[in-house]
Amino acid sequence: MDWQSEVTEQGVTERAFTLEVGEEAVPGIVWTPADRPVRATVLIGHGGTQHKRTPGVLSLARRLVRHLDYASVAIDAPGHGERREGAEERVLPNQLRARVAAMSPEQMEAAAKRNAGAVGEWKATLDAVEKSVGINGPFGYWGVSMGTGIGLPFVASESRIAAAVFGLMGVGPRVGSERLAEAARKVTIPVLFLFQWDDELMEREQGLALYDAFGSAEKTMHINPGGHIEMPPFERDAVEAFFGRHLGRPAG
Amino acid sequence: MDWQSEVTEQGVTERAFTLEVGEEAVPGIVWTPADRPVRATVLIGHGGTQHKRTPGVLSLARRLVRHLDYASVAIDAPGHGERREGAEERVLPNQLRARVAAMSPEQMEAAAKRNAGAVGEWKATLDAVEKSVGINGPFGYWGVSMGTGIGLPFVASESRIAAAVFGLMGVGPRVGSERLAEAARKVTIPVLFLFQWDDELMEREQGLALYDAFGSAEKTMHINPGGHIEMPPFERDAVEAFFGRHLGRPAG
Repeated sequence: MDWQSEVTEQGVTERAFTLEVGEEAVPGIVWTPADRPVRATVLIGHGGTQHKRTPGVLSLARRLVRHLDYASVAIDAPGHGERREGAEERVLPNQLRARVAAMSPEQMEAAAKRNAGAVGEWKATLDAVEKSVGINGPFGYWGVSMGTGIGLPFVASESRIAAAVFGLMGVGPRVGSERLAEAARKVTIPVLFLFQWDDELMEREQGLALYDAFGSAEKTMHINPGGHIEMPPFERDAVEAFFGRHLGRPAG
Repeated sequence: MDWQSEVTEQGVTERAFTLEVGEEAVPGIVWTPADRPVRATVLIGHGGTQHKRTPGVLSLARRLVRHLDYASVAIDAPGHGERREGAEERVLPNQLRARVAAMSPEQMEAAAKRNAGAVGEWKATLDAVEKSVGINGPFGYWGVSMGTGIGLPFVASESRIAAAVFGLMGVGPRVGSERLAEAARKVTIPVLFLFQWDDELMEREQGLALYDAFGSAEKTMHINPGGHIEMPPFERDAVEAFFGRHLGRPAG
């Protein structure tokens, strides 16, 4: 783990790092409480076209540190953030569906392969966090949309993760669906599955099918109206309550 | 409102009352903080075969008082609790489905009519609580299963209720379903809808259809595995968070 920078504000220490994984240099961030021991750690997987410090990731990371004394860890997914070639892409909500629909089978296959490769990067990150930061769990995972596409196979193959939040994803007649359903069946840890009832990218039946597929005895699905990027802010409270229940919370 | 008894324990004052509504004497209970002002009030509708002080109602009522400084109010539904003729009924979980399946169309119709009559009793209770207890809102409603069967038409026709929790109910090819769906379409306040994915009494599609029917801009459905009476205890945390968000919560 090669540390790049460190800054502390409002009780949260943010440290940027680069981790060599095979031929890839994976950039990431660790957020920790500035002056309290780490109670648990949540790995945060961003969505497609986003990056490790996208506003939603940053606010969740800081919130977990401040409210629960957790550490948060995020990395850039392959082809995203600092690993992106070319200018940053800005996709408007109403373009999401057309953008995904316009992908060729070859592009879909390439994306699925890229996501599969990212599983090893998360494992290496977890190893490094344990070794270099001295954090020994418990660990949780949070990632919706592409964060589920990458995170679900990761969590299914990783016994160190004790609780996971997924969402904005489904299984059906699409490339990579069977692999995702297979991963879901292997997951037995508690799961919170967040879904948007009017998601432009995912049929309701596909979301319900993925919820069904999870092998976990404790799995809760939260459904809200609205599109892919319109999840209500109060679901962040639910995420915090979920992790607090399974990874621990401050007394009182 | 005719007060019957009063007892205070662990910060919660519990007062039993009887309210004359037409020809009916409706027995109820009001729980309030023993030594703090009332922040908001939640009306609690019990389920079929239960009563106003059934363990689930009692624990929710006390919890809302202790954690949120709310008042809680419960009444016996028609034919339930002190209004029941004959010995108390004890229905085992695995008998639920057979029991409902064995109901004749006439019995279903009678139950639906009885539930419709209960709407007026809740309105009278709310009037009395405002007048005699001096509580002026905001008001919420909580009721699943029969508590939704009665509470949904009540809430749909009652502008004083600001947020409601429903659940364990659906709409489909059953007596009373159209009336329930019609009521749901009229509801525009925030709704939390709790559903059990393996409910012996309700098809998944029926639950999803009722969620769909709500006219509310904010409506969240929580789905968990398990049968009609197996809702996970942590959904009580979600109920508390929901009411806290809409009816107010203590600072800090």
